[in-house]
Amino acid sequence: MSGNRGVVYVAPGKVEVQSIAFPELVEPSGRKANHGVVLRVVSTNICGSDQHMVRGRTTAPAGLVLGHEITGEVVEVGSDVTTLQTGDIVSVPFNVACGRCPMCKEMNTGVCLSVNLARPGGAYGYVDMGGWIGGQAEYVMVPYADFNLLKFPDREQAMEKIRDLTCLSDILPTGYHGAVTAGVRPGSTVYVAGAGPVGLAAAASARLLGAAVTIVGDVNKVRLAHARKVGFHTVDLSEDASLADQIAAILGEPQVDCAIDCVGFEARGHGHSGSHQEAPATVLNSLMEVTRAAGKIGIPGLYVTEDPGATDAAAQRGSLSVRFGLGWAKSHSFFTGQTPVMKYNRNLMQAILWDRIKIADIVNVQVITLDEAPQGYLQFDSGVPKKFVIDPHGLLAS
Amino acid sequence: MSGNRGVVYVAPGKVEVQSIAFPELVEPSGRKANHGVVLRVVSTNICGSDQHMVRGRTTAPAGLVLGHEITGEVVEVGSDVTTLQTGDIVSVPFNVACGRCPMCKEMNTGVCLSVNLARPGGAYGYVDMGGWIGGQAEYVMVPYADFNLLKFPDREQAMEKIRDLTCLSDILPTGYHGAVTAGVRPGSTVYVAGAGPVGLAAAASARLLGAAVTIVGDVNKVRLAHARKVGFHTVDLSEDASLADQIAAILGEPQVDCAIDCVGFEARGHGHSGSHQEAPATVLNSLMEVTRAAGKIGIPGLYVTEDPGATDAAAQRGSLSVRFGLGWAKSHSFFTGQTPVMKYNRNLMQAILWDRIKIADIVNVQVITLDEAPQGYLQFDSGVPKKFVIDPHGLLAS
Amino acid sequence: MSGNRGVVYVAPGKVEVQSIAFPELVEPSGRKANHGVVLRVVSTNICGSDQHMVRGRTTAPAGLVLGHEITGEVVEVGSDVTTLQTGDIVSVPFNVACGRCPMCKEMNTGVCLSVNLARPGGAYGYVDMGGWIGGQAEYVMVPYADFNLLKFPDREQAMEKIRDLTCLSDILPTGYHGAVTAGVRPGSTVYVAGAGPVGLAAAASARLLGAAVTIVGDVNKVRLAHARKVGFHTVDLSEDASLADQIAAILGEPQVDCAIDCVGFEARGHGHSGSHQEAPATVLNSLMEVTRAAGKIGIPGLYVTEDPGATDAAAQRGSLSVRFGLGWAKSHSFFTGQTPVMKYNRNLMQAILWDRIKIADIVNVQVITLDEAPQGYLQFDSGVPKKFVIDPHGLLAS
Amino acid sequence: MSGNRGVVYVAPGKVEVQSIAFPELVEPSGRKANHGVVLRVVSTNICGSDQHMVRGRTTAPAGLVLGHEITGEVVEVGSDVTTLQTGDIVSVPFNVACGRCPMCKEMNTGVCLSVNLARPGGAYGYVDMGGWIGGQAEYVMVPYADFNLLKFPDREQAMEKIRDLTCLSDILPTGYHGAVTAGVRPGSTVYVAGAGPVGLAAAASARLLGAAVTIVGDVNKVRLAHARKVGFHTVDLSEDASLADQIAAILGEPQVDCAIDCVGFEARGHGHSGSHQEAPATVLNSLMEVTRAAGKIGIPGLYVTEDPGATDAAAQRGSLSVRFGLGWAKSHSFFTGQTPVMKYNRNLMQAILWDRIKIADIVNVQVITLDEAPQGYLQFDSGVPKKFVIDPHGLLAS
Repeated sequence: MSGNRGVVYVAPGKVEVQSIAFPELVEPSGRKANHGVVLRVVSTNICGSDQHMVRGRTTAPAGLVLGHEITGEVVEVGSDVTTLQTGDIVSVPFNVACGRCPMCKEMNTGVCLSVNLARPGGAYGYVDMGGWIGGQAEYVMVPYADFNLLKFPDREQAMEKIRDLTCLSDILPTGYHGAVTAGVRPGSTVYVAGAGPVGLAAAASARLLGAAVTIVGDVNKVRLAHARKVGFHTVDLSEDASLADQIAAILGEPQVDCAIDCVGFEARGHGHSGSHQEAPATVLNSLMEVTRAAGKIGIPGLYVTEDPGATDAAAQRGSLSVRFGLGWAKSHSFFTGQTPVMKYNRNLMQAILWDRIKIADIVNVQVITLDEAPQGYLQFDSGVPKKFVIDPHGLLAS
Repeated sequence: MSGNRGVVYVAPGKVEVQSIAFPELVEPSGRKANHGVVLRVVSTNICGSDQHMVRGRTTAPAGLVLGHEITGEVVEVGSDVTTLQTGDIVSVPFNVACGRCPMCKEMNTGVCLSVNLARPGGAYGYVDMGGWIGGQAEYVMVPYADFNLLKFPDREQAMEKIRDLTCLSDILPTGYHGAVTAGVRPGSTVYVAGAGPVGLAAAASARLLGAAVTIVGDVNKVRLAHARKVGFHTVDLSEDASLADQIAAILGEPQVDCAIDCVGFEARGHGHSGSHQEAPATVLNSLMEVTRAAGKIGIPGLYVTEDPGATDAAAQRGSLSVRFGLGWAKSHSFFTGQTPVMKYNRNLMQAILWDRIKIADIVNVQVITLDEAPQGYLQFDSGVPKKFVIDPHGLLAS
Repeated sequence: MSGNRGVVYVAPGKVEVQSIAFPELVEPSGRKANHGVVLRVVSTNICGSDQHMVRGRTTAPAGLVLGHEITGEVVEVGSDVTTLQTGDIVSVPFNVACGRCPMCKEMNTGVCLSVNLARPGGAYGYVDMGGWIGGQAEYVMVPYADFNLLKFPDREQAMEKIRDLTCLSDILPTGYHGAVTAGVRPGSTVYVAGAGPVGLAAAASARLLGAAVTIVGDVNKVRLAHARKVGFHTVDLSEDASLADQIAAILGEPQVDCAIDCVGFEARGHGHSGSHQEAPATVLNSLMEVTRAAGKIGIPGLYVTEDPGATDAAAQRGSLSVRFGLGWAKSHSFFTGQTPVMKYNRNLMQAILWDRIKIADIVNVQVITLDEAPQGYLQFDSGVPKKFVIDPHGLLAS
Repeated sequence: MSGNRGVVYVAPGKVEVQSIAFPELVEPSGRKANHGVVLRVVSTNICGSDQHMVRGRTTAPAGLVLGHEITGEVVEVGSDVTTLQTGDIVSVPFNVACGRCPMCKEMNTGVCLSVNLARPGGAYGYVDMGGWIGGQAEYVMVPYADFNLLKFPDREQAMEKIRDLTCLSDILPTGYHGAVTAGVRPGSTVYVAGAGPVGLAAAASARLLGAAVTIVGDVNKVRLAHARKVGFHTVDLSEDASLADQIAAILGEPQVDCAIDCVGFEARGHGHSGSHQEAPATVLNSLMEVTRAAGKIGIPGLYVTEDPGATDAAAQRGSLSVRFGLGWAKSHSFFTGQTPVMKYNRNLMQAILWDRIKIADIVNVQVITLDEAPQGYLQFDSGVPKKFVIDPHGLLAS
C-alpha cells in the first residue's frame, strides 16, 4: 500500500502522471498531523483554476502535485481523529481549514488563518496556498480531518451517486456561493457570466434556490449549446448585440435581479472583435450594467493579486479599470473570495441524495483514468463543455 | 354598474349570497379614501380562516361580507392613486396596510398600525380586523391601492395563469412565510403539519426553496392521498404510530431540520383515539418533539387571543399548555403571526409566471360561481382536498 | 501539583469544599482526551443555574463537582493541541463543544452533538450535561481545547481586567445572546425581566448594542436599587401597578421594542400577592403583553423539560400555560436555548479590553476564596445584588 | 406667507441667496402632488456633496436651488395626506421616495423608481436627481409626505435637541449606513476614511454600535484634531508612515475588522507628496489593504458615473484603477450607494432623544443665518472642522 502516483505540473502547458510519495500524517511545516487522515482517492476533478497554473500564469513551481477537488475513502486515521473510521466515504472541501481559528469559527473556511503562513486561506495542490499536497493522485492526506471532511451517510448510496457527489468538493458549492451572495431567491431573475463548469453550477444552484429564470452568457458557442441542453437560457457574447439587449430579448427588460461572475480575471472582451483578447474588468463592468438597482453581485470567479502574464502593467499588479461609479449609482454590493465550501456542502449533499439537483449531467461529468489526466487537461483547456473527473482506482466504471 | 352581490355570514354554519352595496372610496371610519380603487373581482377564494367565523368560533356579527383572498381588475381609481389605471389586473394581499406607519415601512404589513383601531393588523371581510368589507363579491374597494396592490405585468398572460395567480392573495405567501421562517433552504428536511391548502402551499414553498424532502402530516386520509399525488411524502396522524416514528421511516432519523405549523388552534389530537377531539397545543408540542436542535418552527397557522368555543377555560382565554421546556432544551426558535403577504408576492408571482411552481394543481383549485359559494363552504368544511375559487363574473371558465 | 479541591454538591441546600482528583486528560466516557488541556483555575463564578441544583430542583447526584464559569491558566497541554501553550490565560465557554459536529460548525455550540450522549449540549459541573467535571476548583480539564478556549492576548492586561473578563464564560454572553435575539439595536427600547446577574448582563449588553433605554424588572427591591445605581431604569413587580403601566410611566407608551426573559421557569407571580408564589409562565406571558407588534423575545432564562419540584403536575412535565394566541396576534418571535458562548465571547472580550463595558461593576462582582464558596452560595440564594467570583489561588487579591 | 428665499447655485465657486417661488404642491413633472406638504424650514444643513456641484465638478445648471438636509414644520397639508398636521416638526430624508414602487417597499429608498425619470433615486436640490427643489430656503415642498417624513414625538423636546436632530436628514444615517454595512458590532475595530462630517458621523455610529475602537484618518490636521477631541483615535495620512503602520501603532496589528469609506471619488493621495493631488481609487485600495480577511467595506462616500473635472480620461468615465484582486484574496465584500435614510432615522432619533449620541458636538454644528450661507459654503470648502446648519427663521438661536 505504499505506492502512490499523481498528476504533476512540469512546465507551462505540461502535466505528467508521476510516482509520488505515499502520504504521511505530517503538515507542510513538518509538524506531526495526528488530526489528519489518509484517503484512497475515489474521484478527483480537474478544475479551471488548475489551468491558471498549467498555463504558466502563476509562479507555481515545477513538481507541484495538482488537485484540490477530492472525494475519497478513509484508509488511515490519525490518533486525534474522533469521528471518522477507515472505510468512510468522504468529500474533501478544497479549502484546507483548521477549525480552531477565528475565521474557521465563523465558517469563513476560505480564509483560515492557520494553514498558510503566507496569507489567509489554504488549498491542496495549489501555488501559494500553504504547500498542501494535491489530490489528483491515488492517495492524499487531509489534515484536521474531523473538521474538514463531510462523511456520506451510506457507502453504497454514495457510490451510486458519486458522479454528482464529486462536485461537492468545489464547483457546486462555489457556484452556489455565487448564487447565494448574489441574493438569489424564489422568483429572482439571474444572469451568470461564464458557461464553464462553475458557471453551470451557479446556474444549477440558482435554479435550486428557486430562481424564476437563469441566463448564462459566454463567448464559447459549444458551451452555450450545452447550457441550453440542460435547461438554461443563454446569451452569446461573441455576438455584437449587447448583453443588455440580449437579456431584454429574454426578460422584456434589460436587467436582472442577481448577477454572478464565474469568469474572473482571465475574462475576454465581448462582441466579434473583443472576444479574442483579454479584458480583465469586462465581466465586472458588464454585470454592473445589467444588474438592477440595489442588486447584489456574487463573484466566485478568481481575481488575483498579481498576474505576471497580464497584457498591461496595471493588471500585472492586480489593478483593474472598474466602472465603480456605475455600481455606486445603483447601490450595488459585491461579494468576493474563495468559497467556504463547508458552509454549504452538507445541505448540497442532501439535495443530491434526494434527487433535487442533477449536477453531474448539468456540468457534463466525464470520467477518465489517472493516466488520461494530461489529455483531460488539454481537452478542458480547449473549451469543451465537460467536467473531467479522474478515477484513479477504477471505482466509478459504470 | 351600481349593483353588487356578495357572500354574507348569516349564522353559525350558514352563509348566503346577498345583494350588497357597490363599493365606495370610503374608509370604515367614514373618511374619504382617495388612495383607494374599486376592483371588479376576477377571482376570490374561500379560506380556512373564513371557516372559523362560519363555524361560529368567533364573535363575527351576522351580516359580515366575507372574503379576503381577492384578485381583480381596476374599474375606478381614487384621485391620490399614482401608479394604477383602470383595466389593470391586480392581486390583493389579504392584509390591509397603509404603507405609511413604522410597521409597514419595515414590511410588517400584517400588523399595520393605521387600518384597525382595535389592534395592529387589518384584513378584508374578517371579524376584529378593522371593518374592511370582504371581497367574495362582484366588486370590492381596496384602500392605499398604490401600496397594497400587485399589478400583473401582462393582462393576457395573467388570465392564462389566473388559477395559480389567485393563490397569491393569501395561501401561497402564507405557506411560503411558514417555510421561510422555519429556515427552509436547499437540502433541508421539512415537516408540514396540516394537509389543507395552506399546508400544501407550505410544502410547495419548501420545494421551491430547495428542500431535499418535504413531509406533510394530517389526520385526513383523503387530503393525504392528494398530497402524495402532487409529490410529497406523508404521515398519517390518525394512525397510532408516533409522528417521530413515521418520520424516521422516511428519513432514517426521527427528526427534521424545519417544521411548519399550518393547523393552528383548532388542532386535534393524534392517534386513533385522539384524532376525534380538539387539543389545541398538540401541533406545537409535536413540532418541538420532531424538530432538530437549533431548528426553527414557522407558525402561520392561526392562534387566537380568545376562543369562546374552546373546550376548556384556559383555551377560551387563548392559553395553551405548551411543553416550552422541550423547545428550550433544543434551542428552538418560534415565528408567529399573520403573513405579511407583500414581502413575498412579487417574487412568487415571478415564480408562477416562469412556471417554477404549479400551485393551482398542488392545492387542487376548483372554480365555482358566486352562487355556488355556500355549497363550496360546506364542501370545504367537510375536508375535501380542494381549494374553492369563486369566479363572480365568469371570467375563469375554461 | 497533584492535589485538587472543589465545590461539591452534597444534599439539597448544601455544598462543601472537598478534596477531589486532579484532572486527567480523559473524557467522561473514559476515552483519552489528547485534545484537552488542564487549567489552573484563575477565577470561577457561582451561577444562578447552579442554584437550581443546590436547591434540589433537579436530579443532580450528591458528589457532583460544581462550576461551569471558568477562567484559567493552561498548565498541561494534550498532545493534539496545536494553538495553546502553558501559561496562556484563557476563558472557558460554559458549553462543552467538540468543534467537529454539524451543530458546532454552525456555531450552535450550545447543542453540540458529541459531548453528551443523552441529548444535544454539554456543560461542566452540571446534571444531565454530559458528565464533565466542574470548575469551582483549583484545577479543571477542558476538552477540545483549541476549539473551546478563548485566549486573552496579553497576560498582564488580562489579570488587570480579570474581574470583568471572568464574566465572559457565561453571564455576559448569555445576557448578550438575549439582547441580540430580541433584536436590540441602536435606538431600541428594551425590557429585561430579572435583575440578577444575567438580567444585568442583558441590560448592559442592550446598552452596548445602542439601546435608547433599558428597563429592568424584578420583585427584589435590593437588586432593583443596584440596577438603578448602575444606570438602568427599573420596574418593581412586587408593586400592584401593572408592568405595562410602569413601562408607560417611563416611555410614554405601554410597550417596548424588545424583551428579554432572564428569569426562566422559577418565575414568581407579579404584584403584592403574586410575588410570593411560583408562576412559571408569568414572565413569558407578561413579555407578550408588553412587546410591540412584530417584536422579538429573547429567552436566555432556563426552562426545563422536567421539574420534579414544580407545584403542579403540568409544570413537572415542563408544560406551561402560555398565552400563545396573544403572541401570535402580535406576530412575535421567540428565541430559546443555552447561549452559544463562543459566538460572542471574542467580540465581548474586545469590548472589555477597550473599556466599552464595565460588566464587573454592573453585576457587582464580589471576589471570595474557595473556602468561602458555601457561604457565597447561601448569600447569592438570599437575593443579594452580587456576583460571586471564586478565586481559588488568591490571584485576584487587589 | 407667499415669499420665499433660498440658496442658489450661480456659477462654479459661487452661491447666492435669492428670492425664489413659494413652494406649490406640484411635482417636477407638473402633476399635482396632493400627497405632499409644505414645510417652514427649521434647519437645513450644508453638505459635502453640495460642494461637488458648487465646485463645478458636475453638470448642475445655474439657478438650481440647493439643499437636501432639511428639518421643518408642516405649514400646508395636501388633501391626500393622512398622518400629518400643521405644526408637526419633521425630519426629511434627503432621498425623495414614493413608498409605492418595489424598491421603496424593500426600504431601498435611495433608488426609488418613481421620482426620477433619468435613473433610480431622487433628492432635493441636486443635479440629475429628479428636479426636486432644494431646501436651503425658508420653505420647501416634500412629496409623498406620509411616507417620507419622520415626525418628532414632541415639539418642545424636538426644539431642545434640534442641533442634533438636524443631522437625521442625511449625515447621521449616512455614516450609520456605512458602519452597518461594514459589519460593525460590539467589539469591532473600525477604520473610517475621512474626518469630515460624514466620517465623524460614521465614527459616532460605530461607537453607538458598540465598536471597541474607532480610528479616523484624513490628510486635514485640523479635522483630525477635532476628531481626537470628541474621542476618536486618528491617523494622519499626510504623514509618510503608512496607514497600516499607523493602525498597528494603535491596535497592535496592521488591520481592522471593518472599514468605511467616507471620502469617495474626490480622494487625494496619501503621504507628504501624494496628499496634494487627486487619486480617486486611493481610499478603496487602502481599505482593502487594512481590512482583515472576510471583512466588509462600507462605502457611503460618493462615486460618480461621470466626472468631467477628473484629471484623467478613465476617471472622467467613472473608471477607477482598483486593486480588485487584493480584495478578492481576502474575501472582502463591498457595499455602495446612496443611504436609504428611512431605514435608520427613526431608531437614530430615539438614540438622540435618549441621549445616547451627541452628534451635534461630534460633527461640531455651527448655526448660521440664511444670509450667511454663501460664507458657510466658503468656510466649509476650506476644510474647517464644522458642520454648517442654516437657520432660516431664527428658530435655533440659543
